[in-house]
Amino acid sequence: MAYNLLKGKKGIIFGALDENSIAWATALRCVEEGAEIVLTNAPIALRMGEINKLAEITNAPVIPADVTSLEDLNNLFTKSMEHFGGKIDFVLHSVGMSLNVRKGKPYTDLDYDFSHKTFDISAMSLHRVLQTAYKLDALNEWASVVALTYIAAQRVFPDYSEMADAKALLESVARSFGYHYGISKKVRINTISQSPTRTTAGSGVKGFDGFINYAEKMSPLGNASAKQCADYTVSLFSDLTRMVTMQNLFHDGGFSSTGVTMDVMLQMEK
Amino acid sequence: MAYNLLKGKKGIIFGALDENSIAWATALRCVEEGAEIVLTNAPIALRMGEINKLAEITNAPVIPADVTSLEDLNNLFTKSMEHFGGKIDFVLHSVGMSLNVRKGKPYTDLDYDFSHKTFDISAMSLHRVLQTAYKLDALNEWASVVALTYIAAQRVFPDYSEMADAKALLESVARSFGYHYGISKKVRINTISQSPTRTTAGSGVKGFDGFINYAEKMSPLGNASAKQCADYTVSLFSDLTRMVTMQNLFHDGGFSSTGVTMDVMLQMEK
Amino acid sequence: MAYNLLKGKKGIIFGALDENSIAWATALRCVEEGAEIVLTNAPIALRMGEINKLAEITNAPVIPADVTSLEDLNNLFTKSMEHFGGKIDFVLHSVGMSLNVRKGKPYTDLDYDFSHKTFDISAMSLHRVLQTAYKLDALNEWASVVALTYIAAQRVFPDYSEMADAKALLESVARSFGYHYGISKKVRINTISQSPTRTTAGSGVKGFDGFINYAEKMSPLGNASAKQCADYTVSLFSDLTRMVTMQNLFHDGGFSSTGVTMDVMLQMEK
Amino acid sequence: MAYNLLKGKKGIIFGALDENSIAWATALRCVEEGAEIVLTNAPIALRMGEINKLAEITNAPVIPADVTSLEDLNNLFTKSMEHFGGKIDFVLHSVGMSLNVRKGKPYTDLDYDFSHKTFDISAMSLHRVLQTAYKLDALNEWASVVALTYIAAQRVFPDYSEMADAKALLESVARSFGYHYGISKKVRINTISQSPTRTTAGSGVKGFDGFINYAEKMSPLGNASAKQCADYTVSLFSDLTRMVTMQNLFHDGGFSSTGVTMDVMLQMEK
Repeated sequence: MAYNLLKGKKGIIFGALDENSIAWATALRCVEEGAEIVLTNAPIALRMGEINKLAEITNAPVIPADVTSLEDLNNLFTKSMEHFGGKIDFVLHSVGMSLNVRKGKPYTDLDYDFSHKTFDISAMSLHRVLQTAYKLDALNEWASVVALTYIAAQRVFPDYSEMADAKALLESVARSFGYHYGISKKVRINTISQSPTRTTAGSGVKGFDGFINYAEKMSPLGNASAKQCADYTVSLFSDLTRMVTMQNLFHDGGFSSTGVTMDVMLQMEK
Repeated sequence: MAYNLLKGKKGIIFGALDENSIAWATALRCVEEGAEIVLTNAPIALRMGEINKLAEITNAPVIPADVTSLEDLNNLFTKSMEHFGGKIDFVLHSVGMSLNVRKGKPYTDLDYDFSHKTFDISAMSLHRVLQTAYKLDALNEWASVVALTYIAAQRVFPDYSEMADAKALLESVARSFGYHYGISKKVRINTISQSPTRTTAGSGVKGFDGFINYAEKMSPLGNASAKQCADYTVSLFSDLTRMVTMQNLFHDGGFSSTGVTMDVMLQMEK
Repeated sequence: MAYNLLKGKKGIIFGALDENSIAWATALRCVEEGAEIVLTNAPIALRMGEINKLAEITNAPVIPADVTSLEDLNNLFTKSMEHFGGKIDFVLHSVGMSLNVRKGKPYTDLDYDFSHKTFDISAMSLHRVLQTAYKLDALNEWASVVALTYIAAQRVFPDYSEMADAKALLESVARSFGYHYGISKKVRINTISQSPTRTTAGSGVKGFDGFINYAEKMSPLGNASAKQCADYTVSLFSDLTRMVTMQNLFHDGGFSSTGVTMDVMLQMEK
Repeated sequence: MAYNLLKGKKGIIFGALDENSIAWATALRCVEEGAEIVLTNAPIALRMGEINKLAEITNAPVIPADVTSLEDLNNLFTKSMEHFGGKIDFVLHSVGMSLNVRKGKPYTDLDYDFSHKTFDISAMSLHRVLQTAYKLDALNEWASVVALTYIAAQRVFPDYSEMADAKALLESVARSFGYHYGISKKVRINTISQSPTRTTAGSGVKGFDGFINYAEKMSPLGNASAKQCADYTVSLFSDLTRMVTMQNLFHDGGFSSTGVTMDVMLQMEK
């Protein structure tokens, strides 16, 4: 169902790789809700994924950008404003990658150059996006920025490894920049802490299937899907949520407020 | 602006006293968004306030209910279902009153009978509402319940006195019942932790004006208004936020994540 | 091992029932650390338990007090000051009881008179203790008050039922009174959120054994024992922790900051 | 007063620059409590500060180490174990530096190479310390690691700038490594979130004096001093707190749980 919640709004969606991506689902929902969008991803992800299919459906240009490059981000925002003929109303940051996890380095044996890259891509990328927009004055008043995160930033999930630290950093950047952009331009910045989601990126994490089942059993409403995350993100991009800022919002079927469920207790007694 | 977000949904709104009430604004917005509603309040509040005016605008029946009476609540849900010809999709709990504050008893000299009544009216009322609905099976799957709270449940604001404890209890009830109602019926229950709002009830608190100014200066986006709270509540009643449950959601212009602002620092240096 | 950490200090210990009680272990440790103590409990608990044995070992008077009676608490503090020949330096509040749990009423079918008593005994008792001390000016500057709580105040553990709400209320009372007593007398008030502990009281909770095993597997250091809790409490009563106040302190082997352990994941895959 | 709390324990203290340092006060207190220590700091800090004076008083060797160098840290732990003739029981991490703050770059105009260094020195240094110790098996069972942090990791204090993000990262590293080191060796790792403290390092932050006064007025017990922080750290290094791990512990006179004080309200009304 569509409500025209984003009618007239213009946004940039980072991180749509393929149909399993939360960013993919969000792009679709934003357009359904009346928004115009620009799609972006790293050049290598553009080659690997199927973004052109999405670009066609959503009638959106694809502007490549490496989130670690200020030049690329500057180009992205400049071109997006040209394309839209105006400033931007919303941004989805759905970007994350851990080199240590990918290379199989355990948390007690990190390669610190890898860590630097992990934080640069997964967390400081949000700062770069915001700083670029801030300098270009690219966001409209009451624009809404959402970055996706995970509860590992608060509680340890061993397989999530250094990505937990990256997410803690990301959430802090959202808060910190949320203050400055809120004061100066009434832009709001939040993170959504989403249930584990079976995306192509997520699948790379060791033990991911077992983990997704555990989260399902530990969530009174079950795990939130990518589509449901897209719905929630739409509500945060809309004008209904203007005074919500600098928050980390759990979208997880109640997982974060659940100590244990009867389901898990039964399993523990086996 | 209206989006038909609540088209076909039916809800009960507790606590609309007069035009300053958050519940009043919420009732209006729910109806604008296509919902049908029932209004309710304590018999004494019905006499003091102007609810009939609201009832007329929203084309809603008014069913009196003392939130400390299971009989009244039973009647409210039964009559509401009769009126709607079906079950309920959303409930707003906007109820709170501190006898010790009203009677000028400081936090270090509480009357415990008053405290009991404060908790009974302000917090356990939510449990009564939910338990009544649960026993009558009065809520549809994916129904959404929102209760209004305040950040005093996490941090001390001295004038807020025992109401802080009542709100902590309220938030716990929302979490606890959210688990059970989530597991059994996929009903979601959340609290909105709202900026201090100049309502008729709020005005009763000593030092309220000074406090509202402080909160304004401490919030990057300023204080959230009653109307903005109504908008946010609509988003939580809608189907866009189905997987958000057992959460305490700050709707406060960033107050909760702000340690200090430049504005407050300047004032402190005077 | 003893360090003379509480040399010259005088304290009141609520809630020592038998050797399994955390309060029992704490009483012993306080005396080992050089403190003088008064023991107290409800008249009925005094009859059921073995407190006279503890009184003998610790050379402490037993002064009965029903925590719901201001008269009893007044008597307790007055007599304690007479006994000590001076004011009090520390108080342990280890009191909790849920009538609904005891009577087997599920959380969705609470008896509200029972709930009132649960909150009165388990949470407002702390307020009564503090208010009584405050009015009698019975605490020395830098006195330290500790109340025992459980993480169910933040996350739902279904079998813990209404006791979760009581603990949320208790923690709020500690914060609220901590503000007032801190400002006026530099008294600090904290709660310790302890691992599930195999006490005589705890054993009453349905499914407690399964639960204690789950917590053990979910805590990187395992569950904290009653003796370890006594050690920790001693550190909070000592002068080493003077600036810690209004905090809820997890003493749980890391449970509260753990999303999942490999141990639990293995069990889930069975 | 001394209690022999750390008798027989051996520890490493990072970050003692001069008499104003929290690490300086902690080194003194650890030795008073019976510990043997090794002092360490960056070569440049060793030249600028007065650590030799402290080394003399505490009878401790000074082993230089750049916290961004694995080689230096390896040398530090190896030499320390040689010096002690055994493994280590406690570590204080009191290290932090923001290049962007130092160079006057505002949060909305960060230099990202500077940020990388800030995080490397202020946060990943803790990971390096722990990983080095882990690989060398340099810590005894039940060893205790404490890192100093600040509440800016949770709430924005605008002048604190990127250091807030560094502290959020540091706290996450403490939690994440706390899990792994807890499971494998029963080592506990915590952060102390300390009141703003007038250290030589702290003085570098713009508006620091105004800020320290604000914090004083907002804390029911006032700001915690460096000496009090040393006392608290001693309690965390002792065997009394063995089951506390993966926690962020506020040592702030109640600041973190205070929404507003009457003092601040009065100032706001001027």
